Amino acid sequence: MQTVKLDLAHAPYDIHIARDLLTQVELIKPLLLQPRVVIVSNATVAPLYLKSLQDALEAADIQCHSIILPDGEVYKTSETLNLIFDELLTERCERKTTLIALGGGVIGDMTGFAAAVYQRGVPFIQIPTTLLAQVDSSVGGKTGINHPLGKNMIGAFYQPKLVLADLATLDTLPLRELSAGLAEVIKYGLIDDLAFFEWLEANIERLMARETEALAYAVERCCQNKARIVAGDEKEQGQRALLNLGHTFGHAIESGLGYGVWLHGEAVAVGMMLAAFASRELDQISDDDIARIESLLKKAGLPVQAPQLGNERYLDLMAQDKKVDAGKIKFVLMRCLGESYIGELNRETVIAALDAGCSSV
Amino acid sequence: MQTVKLDLAHAPYDIHIARDLLTQVELIKPLLLQPRVVIVSNATVAPLYLKSLQDALEAADIQCHSIILPDGEVYKTSETLNLIFDELLTERCERKTTLIALGGGVIGDMTGFAAAVYQRGVPFIQIPTTLLAQVDSSVGGKTGINHPLGKNMIGAFYQPKLVLADLATLDTLPLRELSAGLAEVIKYGLIDDLAFFEWLEANIERLMARETEALAYAVERCCQNKARIVAGDEKEQGQRALLNLGHTFGHAIESGLGYGVWLHGEAVAVGMMLAAFASRELDQISDDDIARIESLLKKAGLPVQAPQLGNERYLDLMAQDKKVDAGKIKFVLMRCLGESYIGELNRETVIAALDAGCSSV
Repeated sequence: MQTVKLDLAHAPYDIHIARDLLTQVELIKPLLLQPRVVIVSNATVAPLYLKSLQDALEAADIQCHSIILPDGEVYKTSETLNLIFDELLTERCERKTTLIALGGGVIGDMTGFAAAVYQRGVPFIQIPTTLLAQVDSSVGGKTGINHPLGKNMIGAFYQPKLVLADLATLDTLPLRELSAGLAEVIKYGLIDDLAFFEWLEANIERLMARETEALAYAVERCCQNKARIVAGDEKEQGQRALLNLGHTFGHAIESGLGYGVWLHGEAVAVGMMLAAFASRELDQISDDDIARIESLLKKAGLPVQAPQLGNERYLDLMAQDKKVDAGKIKFVLMRCLGESYIGELNRETVIAALDAGCSSV
Repeated sequence: MQTVKLDLAHAPYDIHIARDLLTQVELIKPLLLQPRVVIVSNATVAPLYLKSLQDALEAADIQCHSIILPDGEVYKTSETLNLIFDELLTERCERKTTLIALGGGVIGDMTGFAAAVYQRGVPFIQIPTTLLAQVDSSVGGKTGINHPLGKNMIGAFYQPKLVLADLATLDTLPLRELSAGLAEVIKYGLIDDLAFFEWLEANIERLMARETEALAYAVERCCQNKARIVAGDEKEQGQRALLNLGHTFGHAIESGLGYGVWLHGEAVAVGMMLAAFASRELDQISDDDIARIESLLKKAGLPVQAPQLGNERYLDLMAQDKKVDAGKIKFVLMRCLGESYIGELNRETVIAALDAGCSSV
């Protein structure tokens, strides 16, 4: 078992990474404030893993209740959140009852937000079952729901007590979801870890084949990178925004096409391509760099061409982003391969990037 | 102008108390991260005070937008909260846009919660316009909304950047609302301030007549008491729960009768009577103490007799309280007049208190 520590002064916690962690209740039990948990999962993941988790908890005399939500980004809404509250209140869950998120990014974000605001805050644990959630969304305490006018617009910074990344749950992950997770994996290489980007170029086939050793290394490396960045800037006042590489364009794609049409990771992959094109416009990265990014994304089974929403629609959707300050949109751009920074783009550069990214490749 | 400081290590702030603070924009302007605010108010308060505030802000080159909600506890819901989000997103409010709550406890709680979760947190300022909000709800960072199954069940601890208690706004406060505020004022005397309780016995008529000097003293004393307790226990891990004196019974009354039938302060007044009866059952306070509490509440124009919901219904409603731990309800009880503590009650004592409190006085 590998363990990455997230060193936040007020709330440090462990991220454990290994196969078959799901039933290792001895990792969970010491953290509970009362022998009672509520597991939040979805209709896809629950049939696969809920019983194992629940049996293990109950064998350790921990009372379990489960809430099964419909699966998909389209359900990451205030309506679904209210279903969680209804159930927590009907079950008379208390301030010391721990919520456990068992699922991918949507389940983790919603469960975390429910934990942040139910009775003004109850403890929660993340058990991410997708690659995307294991390398990114379960770590760092960003929680929230979507609004028809923007993704993740309502939420909280609220840290879990523990993250259990059980690599065995990736065995059942649909290929499309594996690829979506790899988009966030590749993102860490592009942010500030050229060595990891090069490791990915050499090992992408092993990851696509789900070799445990390769997956374990990638998840650990991503969590280490994320933990370092988050520990330095928990509330995203500065450098944490680097983790949004590809996300400003990506959120516009998700929101513009309708949540769930593209997976988040797919939108981020194309978002990174657009950020690369914008950076090339600024004479920062080369055609050769872009070719390497595109090649790696393609080998990871990801799209590299942006959907045709129309430039004005893209600009309008991005103007709603959380990183907007005084009307100016902030972008994460690439100074060179493996080194990103936070900057601004003028309208012409955004349009040039969109023109390059939307044209048929 | 009196100023009480709330000394929280991570987020200290000032509570200013005086007449005509509403237009003193120099108190607000230095705290803004961008020259832009959104004022949230209700249909009762806005016609009285919104224009003065808005004109003063605009004269100082601060861009204003206002959101007017319907008035009343019955609107403290997720539906109304979503109206705020819709407007903030439609207006493209940013992470640095400050929300200003202009109104009573409902507006303050909802605006504070909206600020806590919009884009994972934006700054907010409280301008409480009721006595209850000035002495209690605007100070200390408890924010939230009601759920059909329980009051304030969804929320966050989220501190304002500033509280402006403009005593002139109390001129227009309906008498019933003034009385409701006095319930929370009297509460501070009963928690741990016998000298203030005795001052209230001597000055209740001056407060009912809205003498500025008396109101200023009462608001300042309450804010000092609240600031001291909150600074010692921001997240209500211990002593902060003393501020809930009368609230466990009170929330059951509000929820049981339907939100808005009784005002929050009225329910708290009766809740304090029930807490007193329970404490007498435990041989802690005397008949004479109870008579003094009852007399003061009556002079403040408050009810002292509990509505007949039936004992089982009371017990059921209270089992939903946020202070429940492992199925046991915590109550704030009175060791003697002017000294409260957090304890538990067995079923028989609760029923005896309800029998005493519901019988015709």
